[in-house]
Order: sequence, then structure tokens, then C-alpha cells
Amino acid sequence: MNIRFYNARLMTLDERERPALTEGELWVQGNQIVYIGDGRDRRAQEVASEKSPLVWERQENCQGNLLMPGFKNAHTHTAMTFVRTVADDLPLQDWLTKQIFPREGCLREEDIYWLDILGIMEYLTSGITSNFDMYFYPPMNASASVDTGFRTVLVPGFNNFGAPIETVEENMCRVNEMGELVSMVVGFHAEYTTSMERMEDVAKLASKYKSPVFLHNSETEREVKECIDRWGKTPTQLTDSLGMYEYGGGGYHCIWFSDEDFEIYKRRGLTAVTNPASNLKLASGIAPISRFLDEGISLAIGTDGASSNNALDMFREMYLTTALAKVREGDASAVPAEDVLYMATAGGAKAMGLTDCDRLAEGKKADLIMIDLKQPNMQPENDILKNLVYSGSKQNVKMTMVDGRILYENGSFHIGFDPGDIYARANEIIQRINREAGFGQ
Amino acid sequence: MNIRFYNARLMTLDERERPALTEGELWVQGNQIVYIGDGRDRRAQEVASEKSPLVWERQENCQGNLLMPGFKNAHTHTAMTFVRTVADDLPLQDWLTKQIFPREGCLREEDIYWLDILGIMEYLTSGITSNFDMYFYPPMNASASVDTGFRTVLVPGFNNFGAPIETVEENMCRVNEMGELVSMVVGFHAEYTTSMERMEDVAKLASKYKSPVFLHNSETEREVKECIDRWGKTPTQLTDSLGMYEYGGGGYHCIWFSDEDFEIYKRRGLTAVTNPASNLKLASGIAPISRFLDEGISLAIGTDGASSNNALDMFREMYLTTALAKVREGDASAVPAEDVLYMATAGGAKAMGLTDCDRLAEGKKADLIMIDLKQPNMQPENDILKNLVYSGSKQNVKMTMVDGRILYENGSFHIGFDPGDIYARANEIIQRINREAGFGQ
Repeated sequence: MNIRFYNARLMTLDERERPALTEGELWVQGNQIVYIGDGRDRRAQEVASEKSPLVWERQENCQGNLLMPGFKNAHTHTAMTFVRTVADDLPLQDWLTKQIFPREGCLREEDIYWLDILGIMEYLTSGITSNFDMYFYPPMNASASVDTGFRTVLVPGFNNFGAPIETVEENMCRVNEMGELVSMVVGFHAEYTTSMERMEDVAKLASKYKSPVFLHNSETEREVKECIDRWGKTPTQLTDSLGMYEYGGGGYHCIWFSDEDFEIYKRRGLTAVTNPASNLKLASGIAPISRFLDEGISLAIGTDGASSNNALDMFREMYLTTALAKVREGDASAVPAEDVLYMATAGGAKAMGLTDCDRLAEGKKADLIMIDLKQPNMQPENDILKNLVYSGSKQNVKMTMVDGRILYENGSFHIGFDPGDIYARANEIIQRINREAGFGQ
Repeated sequence: MNIRFYNARLMTLDERERPALTEGELWVQGNQIVYIGDGRDRRAQEVASEKSPLVWERQENCQGNLLMPGFKNAHTHTAMTFVRTVADDLPLQDWLTKQIFPREGCLREEDIYWLDILGIMEYLTSGITSNFDMYFYPPMNASASVDTGFRTVLVPGFNNFGAPIETVEENMCRVNEMGELVSMVVGFHAEYTTSMERMEDVAKLASKYKSPVFLHNSETEREVKECIDRWGKTPTQLTDSLGMYEYGGGGYHCIWFSDEDFEIYKRRGLTAVTNPASNLKLASGIAPISRFLDEGISLAIGTDGASSNNALDMFREMYLTTALAKVREGDASAVPAEDVLYMATAGGAKAMGLTDCDRLAEGKKADLIMIDLKQPNMQPENDILKNLVYSGSKQNVKMTMVDGRILYENGSFHIGFDPGDIYARANEIIQRINREAGFGQ
């Protein structure tokens, strides 16, 4: 779509890669940002003639509201929407083994499609324009994204209990043929669910495809202890020693890190993806975000799945990322808001290999959102960027655009599906699963 | 207003005072709930004839959405909206002494009125129907509430640096004459800002008016240590020894409690008001909510002011109340969602002396909200009450009613003021204050 946004505030990145605020216009042609500026400069004239005919399908007066890059949800299990609050306030092991696993065992491949669309809708309400997803049946996840117009990077949840590495490879190849909106990289669930043989398979696959590798890493203290008992190494040391990170990658959660683990992440250029709401709800701990920042290690933010969060809301995660760092370090100045904004946008994009839509700049893909500043929680306008992190909410998301298409605007979805139908399907699925898994209903 | 809500889900309290879900109708006549039921039972007929003529000004099909009591924001400094993100990500002492205090010194009495209205607007977007407010010029706070139709209980921020106890008494008497929407109880800022003589004045005032007493209590570890150094007692022990709690009361924050402090709160029937977002952002600590619950001590939840939170959003506070307890105790089953809902509604009402609007029941005042369940974050409907706490957000607040009047509905305010005017005034105020306090702008 060709849209001219004018009278906007814009969150760009300055020469030091820090979020910065400017004012002006942003032009989208097709799926690309083709111009940012005051709309009257030489570059504007050049673009208008280069791209000729640049016919506006829409000219939007932003009335001083903020355009910014869409949030990148860098770790999630989207289709787990079906187990949102199905079994909360239980001890972790009971929750997982008695409530979640039995229900997951009853999932059908087609369920994933509808449950994924429900999750994508929630992402759109929170200004999330792409997700880094690990769940069953990756091609089904990819289809949901393609059909709604959403952007997704997939990573396999490979472990001892599922299909062999050949299936992972097959899924990867299939997803990577499904168009520009979706892609798949190498990964696996976690050390504690995956045999040495299967981990070695992962390393070989990464090498073959020159792919980064992602996994759940050091989410709980117990996981790390047991890994050391088994292999004499932490999960980070073990996976590094298996040669997994030749082409980068990173870990989800990354709470219980040793000095050597930090060193490996730094040396290999890996990304630590933090999932603060999930880490609280499952009582896993508080991640050492200040230390990662101090070490210069890349950071990104993810919601994790709806069963362990339970919202898929980047505003909550952003607030928690800095607020928990502050209480962990006993220092109200820890992890400034601007760092958090970077993690939630460009940091996530880097982890996901989406550097072509990581920021507002000419030539980048148009994955962007409009934030309503004319709401009480964003007033007065003392510091708009800090406001976003410290008091922003889904209520402020006026518009979410992915790949140049507006998928959500002023509370309405434009994804080719009726919201009521999606809710009805999700309720039918969990009711069927509850029956099949013997939970009654 | 006479409104019949039908086809609703209703959050009531069961015989054990636990939040419970029912379905049916709720009738409001004037400022009161006059009926809850299926709309066809004998009681419905009685009410219709007793209250005759019960002419409906509006009949609202709730379409299965949820009606519940409005949230009670049990600790805040509403007018601090002007210093929202004015100076964040700074060490605590710099933030307070170099940034906040100098600006507060430039506040004019009339500023409070406009800044308070901005805060009230934000409360309404979050389903908050009353606040327990401590700030300068209480009658000005009260006027903002009366003029917008909001419900407020005030407590003085009395300390060494302000007016004498006579002014506090005068303000109390004045506010308590201002109508049913506003009231004022006894209290003071905190032990560390208030001399022994002035604390004794507080105790006398409480005794004279048979009032509960509220104060900031044990917010930081340092505060408690210094109080023990000064008086050989914790703030709780000291204030109790001064005879302050003859008529109840409680504390804000309540993080660093000793065994004896818990014992005093239990014996005196005091309420601990928790402020989790503020406690994180200022790196104060995580409150021992599980212990308070285990001891049977009353709990309530507050946002604190916009300078230390920075949102005035009960959904964020509810999530944090349980999520932080889980990570503090290392137990994913700590502080169930239903307990949090009780704290955020009836618990707050108890602390604030608002037991006439603490729940949905016949004869109670109509302080209630409607929650939109037809949003992705509330689907599927596995557990509506847990969903509220774990994934609910301001985006789900369809309507906020205070004292039988709808003050906020579908994103529009009905408070007698234009939102744009309020935002403009708030921006003018902080710009003037920045100039006067020498911060440039």
C-alpha cells in the first residue's frame, strides 16, 4: 500500500544506535519505507520522482502521534493460547506434567493453525509485528502467518520425544519455501529434554545450513545443576563445545549464567532473549540483564507462551525488563528505558535475522506501529520514549502494519478472519482437548 | 441513572468471601445496585414493584461480558502525574532530591486540581473507581473528584516540612463536608520525615476523630534500620507504641517487616497496601505477600504516584502482586489470582472505609466496571477470573461507573472536561515548573 504518514513523531536510531525522537513524514510504498524526512527536502523530491508514479492510496495525519518499528517478540510458543489460564497457581511440576503435557498430547495439526491466529491477533493489539516461534508442526505455524499477513521466524522444538532430525530438516526446507513472511532456523527445545546424539544432530544441521542455533537455556537453577551433573558443563558450555554456534544463535530465558557462560555469549556474538513475565510466573528467577548489557551482549525480549505468562504483551515485558533489573541490582538507574526499546525492536530483529525490518529507515520493510500519545497514561509529554516503557500499554496501539499492510487499526483486525470465529474455534478446541485428556469440562 | 444490565457475567463474592462468577442481570437505580439475579425471579418482581416506578433510562445487553466491582487504588499520589518520566533511570536519591523535590516546590494549589483530573482519567481507563490519595492541598484533590464524579478518600501527607497539625485537622473537616464522594482520614507521610512531636500530634488527632491512621511504612530496608537506630523500634512498633492504631489503619509498601511487625498488624487488624510496580522501579524490594496472606492480615493494592510507577494501572499491579510473590517464594502456586482480585476490590475498600461499594450486591453503591472478554487476551475462556489477573489489561475496560454514573465508556470520558484541554494544562504546568525550578525546557 502507498501511504504517506505526516505530522508524526518518529522513533529512529541515532548514530550510536540509541533510540531517538524526530518529527516529520514517513512514506510507505508497497512493503517498503521509501522516505523519512520533513516531506519538503531534496530527498523527498528525488523519491517522489524515482518512485514515480507515487500515488497515495492514503494520507494519514498522525496528529503528533508516534510511529515506531513494530515490536519483535523474540521467544514464544504462539499456539499455546489454548492453555492460557487453564491451570494456573499450581506448583511448576504439577502444572507442566499433570496439566499442560496431557493437553498438548491431544493437539491436532489443524488446531495449531487456529490457535496461532488467536495469538497473532493478540500480538497485533500489542504492536508486535513478528514472532520467533517454537512449537509443534512448524509449517502450520507458518501457514497461519502467511494467511494473516504476519511475519514469523520459526525454530524447531526438537527433543527426545518427537520426530527425528530428518523431519526438522524437512520442515525447515518447507517453511523456507513459503514466502518472504516466514523463515526457519535451527534449534532444539533444551538440553534437559534432548539426548547427546540428538544435540549432535542439531550441530550438524546448523553446520549444513550455516544456521544459528536457539534453545531454552538456563531457565531454572535446577536445569543448570542437572546439566553439570550429567556433562560436567553448563548448558551454554555444553552446546558451545558441540560446535553449535559457528553461525551464531542464542538462548531463551538465560537466567542462571556463570562467568564462562557470559564469556561464550560475548565471544560467539549470541543473543540472550529475556522472558521476564514467564520467569516470574513460573518462579524461575530474575535474569541478569545489567550484566549482559555491561558485557555488550545482544539482548532481545519475548513473551514466552500464553500458558506461562499469560499475556502476549510487549508493554508488560518491557516494563518488567527494566523494573526487575532495578530491584535485582538494588539500583533505580539500572537498564534505562532506551536500552529496553532497543531490545524490543532492533535487538529482537537481530536475533531473528530480520535486520531488513528492524528500524524506521529508508529501504527497510514497513513493519511499524502507531502509538496514541493522546491518552492520559502518555501525558504530560515529559519523555515520550521513557513513557512508552514505563507507562505505555496496549491501549496506546492505534495501528499495527506488517510488510506494508495494516493488520490492526483502532481496535479492528484486517487479517481476513472474523475475530468471533477465531474465539469460537479456540474455545471448541480446548473443550475437545479437555474431554479427550480426561479433564471433563 | 437507572440502568438494566443483562446477559452479563458477574463477579460476586461467595459465602467464604472468595471471588466467584455468576451470570444474569444487574440493575442500577440512581447510585445504587438494587438487584442481581436472573431478572425473572421473585426478588426481581419485588424490586420492580418496591422501586416503582423503575423506568429504565438504558438497557444494556452485556453480550456475556463481565461486570465486576471497580478497582480500589489503595495508595497513590494522584497529582504527581506532572512528574511522570520527568527524570527516570536515575539513582533513587538523585531522582528524589535533585529532580522531584525541586519541582514539587514550584507546585501551585490550582495545579493540583488539573493534575488530579489527569490522574482520574487514567484511573477510569484502568477500571479504578476510587483512590486513597496522599498529596498537598487535600481540599483541591477533593474538588477534582467531586467535579468529575470520582470517589476519593484522602489521607494527609503530614511531616516536618509542611503545615502544622491544625491545618491537617482543618483540611479533614473541610473535605468531610464536601459530599458523599470524598472523605478524609488521619495519617502522615512517614516516620523518617516526621518528628516525634508531630507523630504524637497524629495519634491525638486519630483519637479525637476515632480515625484509622495510614503512613508509608517499611518501604526500604534503610528506612527501617534508621528508625531502629533512632528509636530502638521498627516503624510499625514505634507507631503502635504511640497509640496510633486504636481505630485501625495500616501502611503503604510494607516490604521490610519483622515477625513482631506482622504480629502488630494482625492484632490491630491493620491493612498492608502493596505497591509492586513502584517497589521495583525504585529498587525498594519485593513485599512478603504470601506471609501476610498466611497470617490472615488484610491486603490491598495501590499504584503509588506516576513518578515512581509510572502508570496508574491496576492490571499491572495485580499481575505483579502475584508474579513477584511467586518468584520471591520460589513457588509458582503462591498468591492465587482470586486473592489478588479480592485485594484489588474488597480489600482496598476495607482499608479505605468504603465497604458500601466493595462488591456487587444489592444495596451497595454502583461503583462497577465492564470488562470486554471478546478480545484475544481473554480467549479462550478457560478461567475468566484468573485471566483478568494474568492477562487482563486496560484495553479490556469497556465501561467505568462511579456512584451510578458512567464516567468512561468505549474510550470516551464523561467527566465534564475535554481530554485535550486537560493534556494541554498538564503540559503547561510542567513546562512552567521546569522553568521556575531551573530545569530549562
